[in-house]
Amino acid sequence: MELVLEGDVVRGDSEARERFYDSRGYGHVDAGGLVLAPVEAAHLLYRGDVDHVRDATSGEGLDFRALLSSAAVSEIAVLVYKDLRDRGFYLSPAREGWVDDPAGADFVVYPRGQGPWDEAVAYRVRAISERTAVSAATLGDSVLAVVDEESAITYLETSHPDIGGSTTTDLPTGVAADLLGDRVLVWEPPATLYREGFYGQPLDDETAEPLQLSLIEAAALAGQGVLDVEGGADAIVECGREVEGERFDRRLSVYRALRGRGVVPKTGYKFGADFRTYADVESVDSLGHSELLVRVLPADHAFSPRDLALDVRLAHGVRKRMVFALVAEAEADGEPRIEWLEVARLTP
Amino acid sequence: MELVLEGDVVRGDSEARERFYDSRGYGHVDAGGLVLAPVEAAHLLYRGDVDHVRDATSGEGLDFRALLSSAAVSEIAVLVYKDLRDRGFYLSPAREGWVDDPAGADFVVYPRGQGPWDEAVAYRVRAISERTAVSAATLGDSVLAVVDEESAITYLETSHPDIGGSTTTDLPTGVAADLLGDRVLVWEPPATLYREGFYGQPLDDETAEPLQLSLIEAAALAGQGVLDVEGGADAIVECGREVEGERFDRRLSVYRALRGRGVVPKTGYKFGADFRTYADVESVDSLGHSELLVRVLPADHAFSPRDLALDVRLAHGVRKRMVFALVAEAEADGEPRIEWLEVARLTP
Repeated sequence: MELVLEGDVVRGDSEARERFYDSRGYGHVDAGGLVLAPVEAAHLLYRGDVDHVRDATSGEGLDFRALLSSAAVSEIAVLVYKDLRDRGFYLSPAREGWVDDPAGADFVVYPRGQGPWDEAVAYRVRAISERTAVSAATLGDSVLAVVDEESAITYLETSHPDIGGSTTTDLPTGVAADLLGDRVLVWEPPATLYREGFYGQPLDDETAEPLQLSLIEAAALAGQGVLDVEGGADAIVECGREVEGERFDRRLSVYRALRGRGVVPKTGYKFGADFRTYADVESVDSLGHSELLVRVLPADHAFSPRDLALDVRLAHGVRKRMVFALVAEAEADGEPRIEWLEVARLTP
Repeated sequence: MELVLEGDVVRGDSEARERFYDSRGYGHVDAGGLVLAPVEAAHLLYRGDVDHVRDATSGEGLDFRALLSSAAVSEIAVLVYKDLRDRGFYLSPAREGWVDDPAGADFVVYPRGQGPWDEAVAYRVRAISERTAVSAATLGDSVLAVVDEESAITYLETSHPDIGGSTTTDLPTGVAADLLGDRVLVWEPPATLYREGFYGQPLDDETAEPLQLSLIEAAALAGQGVLDVEGGADAIVECGREVEGERFDRRLSVYRALRGRGVVPKTGYKFGADFRTYADVESVDSLGHSELLVRVLPADHAFSPRDLALDVRLAHGVRKRMVFALVAEAEADGEPRIEWLEVARLTP
């Protein structure tokens, strides 16, 4: 029995198929024989299940070191493949014809105890180096396996969460407010604004006056006619753009979208995020912990895995879920499309 | 008794001095009378200790709202001043002639129970908006009071820590290694490399072979003659620059500096940092927790307070100290000057 590297596949005979596919889920069956991806052959070499793979072009026998050093296989893929095998999974390279829906994944991982002959899929995994930027738009239905510079692997599960809450507030209109520097002050705030709507932060805890609003809160409220500020909502948005540029418009869109879904966004500054959110606010007296941390990004953002690790680790540490709001260009109705992306640590 | 706003000071008579300076530490004594900074007058107005301050130019009486809306005082300074007073401190605006060494601070805060008539200083505080970028080079002997967009205040203590440890390792020379993608593999590693020096990560935990080194580790080791890689240390540095640009050189300098101080740097990827560090490694079998998270930055870096909040919060959550390594241009001997800056949460 010999395994032969031919281009981007490694071929074996029916004996190889019995040993490696039938009993341990390596490769893909083709005309009675076995076809392996080079990453699978590398793992068999690493384990000592085979001594060498013959290179069809040169005729040479390749051992693990030689195959790993060749262009046929990436060391990132080999490390992730090995780690998942070590964790007790069978998995298939996501090649056309080998698995359903191979796009966007490097490996399809089966539930423990199952394999390529079953239907179920546990994870669709993309294997990347920590130095590979990842386009946010490509995430949401796969697990990122990130190999760090010291070859340790961390897994990040990505999904598209439903964001919603039950907060509703009847707001007054025409409340006088001053734009001061990069915040807005309401000198005689109706109690409902802060107490029920959780808008702003009182300067004086006892009198709850004046109420300090962020530019985002004030812009949203002025846009709804709740606040009466010199220059109107436009003056506030203008001020926001001066201090934050386009980012202010993206954040304001996400703020409005969250409020529209019954969720209260408050600043996420202390967590280095744009917002923390409360899904079910009845009164500020009975606030629970915030559930989400939200970072607002343009839809074409590419993540550095290191930055992603930082956000996800922090959110995990404070028992919140990390959600990215990906803001696309404005649509015909003037409101931009927002895609919600959740990223969480995963131990497969 | 009347307080009068004249330019950037608010003047009062000897009665004002008795009421506000002698008993409560506001302002500065000048020719028997009192001189206040506008931020102090704003606080007296806010508390209702005085009804108004007369504007010497217009003759008008300014109440809290009017003074806050004027150009005489920043709302950021007022919020921080109020917060420190609420916490029970007396403090002085850091003006020339009012305090020793006013440069680099907005307020000098006295220990609780003390005031401007004592010598002791508890904190030198800079008050900034979360939107103000802060030059890293200006930090190290002051406390940042950051006012977030919703007007909450967090305090960050900055200092220049001594970085040092007790790790020493006798290293072999001329160990063969392969550069593979963006890591280096040592196929037959001397045990001391990993076990005592904590270099690299074994692919196989049992055999400890091969040993995977990061590009940074490999470049440092090859530069010392420990590793023998095709193309030498230069080939590794070249590869590092390809994947990380100039950042690789900065990180390598910091890696070398830490090792030179007896501290073992390992990747900080999981914490979103450049390194985590171990001060006293005798053997990998008896490793404690890492003590520091290190982020490497160019010396001219300006922090966004939000990014700073993220790093400091994360480090606090995992019980490590957050240290920034500020790397300047190389000096005559070829090694760049590195300044260490620690930033930590503070509750005054």
